[in-house]
Amino acid sequence: MNLKWRKNILNTTSQKISIFALGGVNEIGKNMYVLQSNDDIVVIDCGSKFPDESLLGIDLIIQDISYLQENQEKLRALIVTHGHEDHTGGIPYFLKQLNIPIYATNLTLGLIEIKLKEHGLLRSTKLFLIDSESELQFGTIRTTFFKTSHSIPDCLGIAFHTSQGTIVHTGDFKFDWTPVDRHGPDIHKMAALGENGVLLLLSESTNAERPGSTPSERLVGDHIEEAFRHAPRKVFISTFASNVHRIQQIVDASIKTNRKIALLGRSMVNVVAVAIDRGYLKVPEGMIIEANEVNSMDPEKVVILCTGSQGEPMAALSRLSSSNFRQVEVLPEDTVILAAGPIPGNERSISRIVDNLFQLGARVIYGSGSVTGLHVSGHACQEELKLMLTLMKPKYFVPIHGEYRMLHQHKLLAESVGVHSENIFIVSNGDVVDIENNEAIQTRSVDAGNVFVDGIGIGDVGEIILRDRKVLSEDGMLVIVTTISKSAGKIISGPDTISRGFIYGPESGELINEVNETVQATIHKMKDKNRNQRVLKQSIKKSVEQLLYSRTKRKPMILPIMIEV
Amino acid sequence: MNLKWRKNILNTTSQKISIFALGGVNEIGKNMYVLQSNDDIVVIDCGSKFPDESLLGIDLIIQDISYLQENQEKLRALIVTHGHEDHTGGIPYFLKQLNIPIYATNLTLGLIEIKLKEHGLLRSTKLFLIDSESELQFGTIRTTFFKTSHSIPDCLGIAFHTSQGTIVHTGDFKFDWTPVDRHGPDIHKMAALGENGVLLLLSESTNAERPGSTPSERLVGDHIEEAFRHAPRKVFISTFASNVHRIQQIVDASIKTNRKIALLGRSMVNVVAVAIDRGYLKVPEGMIIEANEVNSMDPEKVVILCTGSQGEPMAALSRLSSSNFRQVEVLPEDTVILAAGPIPGNERSISRIVDNLFQLGARVIYGSGSVTGLHVSGHACQEELKLMLTLMKPKYFVPIHGEYRMLHQHKLLAESVGVHSENIFIVSNGDVVDIENNEAIQTRSVDAGNVFVDGIGIGDVGEIILRDRKVLSEDGMLVIVTTISKSAGKIISGPDTISRGFIYGPESGELINEVNETVQATIHKMKDKNRNQRVLKQSIKKSVEQLLYSRTKRKPMILPIMIEV
Repeated sequence: MNLKWRKNILNTTSQKISIFALGGVNEIGKNMYVLQSNDDIVVIDCGSKFPDESLLGIDLIIQDISYLQENQEKLRALIVTHGHEDHTGGIPYFLKQLNIPIYATNLTLGLIEIKLKEHGLLRSTKLFLIDSESELQFGTIRTTFFKTSHSIPDCLGIAFHTSQGTIVHTGDFKFDWTPVDRHGPDIHKMAALGENGVLLLLSESTNAERPGSTPSERLVGDHIEEAFRHAPRKVFISTFASNVHRIQQIVDASIKTNRKIALLGRSMVNVVAVAIDRGYLKVPEGMIIEANEVNSMDPEKVVILCTGSQGEPMAALSRLSSSNFRQVEVLPEDTVILAAGPIPGNERSISRIVDNLFQLGARVIYGSGSVTGLHVSGHACQEELKLMLTLMKPKYFVPIHGEYRMLHQHKLLAESVGVHSENIFIVSNGDVVDIENNEAIQTRSVDAGNVFVDGIGIGDVGEIILRDRKVLSEDGMLVIVTTISKSAGKIISGPDTISRGFIYGPESGELINEVNETVQATIHKMKDKNRNQRVLKQSIKKSVEQLLYSRTKRKPMILPIMIEV
Repeated sequence: MNLKWRKNILNTTSQKISIFALGGVNEIGKNMYVLQSNDDIVVIDCGSKFPDESLLGIDLIIQDISYLQENQEKLRALIVTHGHEDHTGGIPYFLKQLNIPIYATNLTLGLIEIKLKEHGLLRSTKLFLIDSESELQFGTIRTTFFKTSHSIPDCLGIAFHTSQGTIVHTGDFKFDWTPVDRHGPDIHKMAALGENGVLLLLSESTNAERPGSTPSERLVGDHIEEAFRHAPRKVFISTFASNVHRIQQIVDASIKTNRKIALLGRSMVNVVAVAIDRGYLKVPEGMIIEANEVNSMDPEKVVILCTGSQGEPMAALSRLSSSNFRQVEVLPEDTVILAAGPIPGNERSISRIVDNLFQLGARVIYGSGSVTGLHVSGHACQEELKLMLTLMKPKYFVPIHGEYRMLHQHKLLAESVGVHSENIFIVSNGDVVDIENNEAIQTRSVDAGNVFVDGIGIGDVGEIILRDRKVLSEDGMLVIVTTISKSAGKIISGPDTISRGFIYGPESGELINEVNETVQATIHKMKDKNRNQRVLKQSIKKSVEQLLYSRTKRKPMILPIMIEV
């Protein structure tokens, strides 16, 4: 320990440490964890999340970072643990609101740079390359790292050495003892951290419901090679573009079975380029062919590596399955391999693609990884989570990165290896765990929540707009325009009724007549009583609503428009 | 064989038999199969299907029955194989379009009657009680039945003895050798049918992707009892209301563990009443308590049997999980058991409920049936499908009741037990298999498709309305009203812009001003050129669209309204 560091400790013994999530707990996605030591804030990860079907029209969900905006003078760093979307996808939107230096490993930085280029933010952002041996000082917070294995290379866990003790964030991890790139998890470092005392552990919970251990990525390689050998003609194989280890195994299997590789899908092309460029993917010269070369080659000599394993409608696999890809097509006796597990919620879209591929006459290899051997998870199952907890021996434990039931199961696992129940905090986004005098408590919260990205706008679509979209999506709408005389309140023209998404005009003349009659009657009835436009509109709305519900049992949005001339 | 039947055969040797699906192939749901022998049509099942999230606002999907309407004088019967929604849910809508006598077993009729009552159709419908020993003559078609096991009691397979040979429809089935009600499948009858020669088999394909055999329903009973014994306080258990065998086992486990049962959820109350009334469920006197008695009882003495195992937002379990049920609440240390597997697509809603239940402090027993032992499928897996194919030894085979990949896998299974590949027809809804001179061919189709039920209307929501709903749901809309003078084409009032689901008016003054300026400019530009309203509206639409896309990257529906005075 050098002198400078010793001085820091002496100066900071009375400091309070605060830890909270701005995203990532009670959800899968938009991870962001914050560590604050008095005047120094370090942010860990900045992910995005895809909206579920109830958030109509929303493109992306990111974090509410108002706490960080209010404390921007304290912001020291954004450390990104690895290059997955749920840890990086929010970065461009964050940077549009707040500038912050970013620290990440080589591959992670490469993937972040693609995003920054797309958003025109590359020049204005400070990027710092780190590795698992880096030692950084963010104000009073000394920070070291350890390698973890996951479904993307170059992942980090983080140790924050604070005045109160060591706080460890695992990042995403599994324990893969036979990693494809031979860079296994830093188990000795983890053991040393635990031996020296970990005050608080934040550990990911994705697979906390699953017993046992996650198999090694290497097992997938053998199954890929076997599938390639048995394929009579072209092979299409779809996996996550970011799973560079799996892509390496696909490359290796292609070499062994004497096939060249074409890449389909923008993210596949981008990630493979970055991974080759930065030395994470070894591809012999001449192995990769252009998509438009596929048709001129012997089908037994080709592998097409493509995006779309989650059934995304615009991705390569979906377009191939509906014969909607210009340069390449799936033909009878071609083999299509789905080398990825379904993310919950995507099952139906994937099934639809498999159906279509079978209809094209393809041999399709699909289904859960435990059956096909063509997918393993990147996350630790229960036995591995217990290993991490045992290595770290934390006094306090905060399960992160998971929906509530996963956090709950992770809590039970922690208890089973000896963490005291009262020292485990299941938090919501924004709940702060404060550590002072070596004691942790959770009593306060900061602002946290979902911010919606729709088109260019960040956060400008709120509850009212979403509620309107819901009504419009279910039963459409009816605009009723009437021109009345300012002086007498008499109808000059109209009512004219226009419908969208409710009834089809040309077939609904009778109902529209009834609507117009109801509007006329309402205006007539109100004529002498009340000339207040708002009241009149309310009456029209109510009477038309009643009419329509009695006739159709539906409740479209009704927009009465009154023009006074 | 009696004389009358012999005569029929003699008269009908030259008849053509046609078979097709109007629903149920390339999908799960809305089953309807049609057998036609010259002038006699028999319909098998009349199910409904729930729309996926792309069909905005649609309540239900039913069959296009225009072929049956055009041939209604030939309609002899609707035979319903069992009481599940995907086989019965379309009946009220069918009957509103066409009257037809219905043939079904005791429990199935009981469940159909509930539906008919709700729709005011009970009096006008002819219902005929049949059982597996019935022998019916529909014109030239002699019809017999055999029992199958499934996840509801009283299921039938059907054998049609036609001039061309015997055609067998399995209904839904599994082979449960230890059935809860001790009424196992009629395997000897099936063997006899096969032995006497089956010309064509229609067999269900739901689990054709799954290897092995489906476990017996009886296994679930032991696990339920064990879970009840370990429950320290109240037990909530949710399963499909129609799974009367499982409900019997829940009743039995309650008796053994000295608990009374309260029923929550309309369909649970309805089905249990019908099942008790018709003798399918044995419940001792005094076992069932009212929901409002739960709170006054010792929590160790209560089981609450409820609907909502699929995460349906309005069903009992969902409301319990959000503490939104008047009479009963889930408290810490209560046990909640999800005794049902997720239907694909429902995973997320179910997970959300489990999360909420854990947050209430409940012990939740959930997860796949193969882990918890608390659910088994009602459908035959691969080994059972092969058993059915082997028993029936059909010359021709048509896999039904499944999405394409299931039909495809079922075809492979049929080939594996000796059915000739060229004798297997994978059909789409509407594709007709014609049998003449003992030969089957598939060359023609009848109308078939999805008919949408939305509110009261059957089939009045079509593609245009759905397309509009989609646009409205994603980006909302903008109504722009301008009053112009008929004579000079000058603006008299407006433009006034109203938005719903696009931007929130009070916060978007600037953008709305820009819209209004664009509209003014467009009207001004067009003033001298063209006074055609349609052309003017198109121009306004286009220029506003461009403006909004450049400002927001969003594409709301734009409705320009021009009032001429």
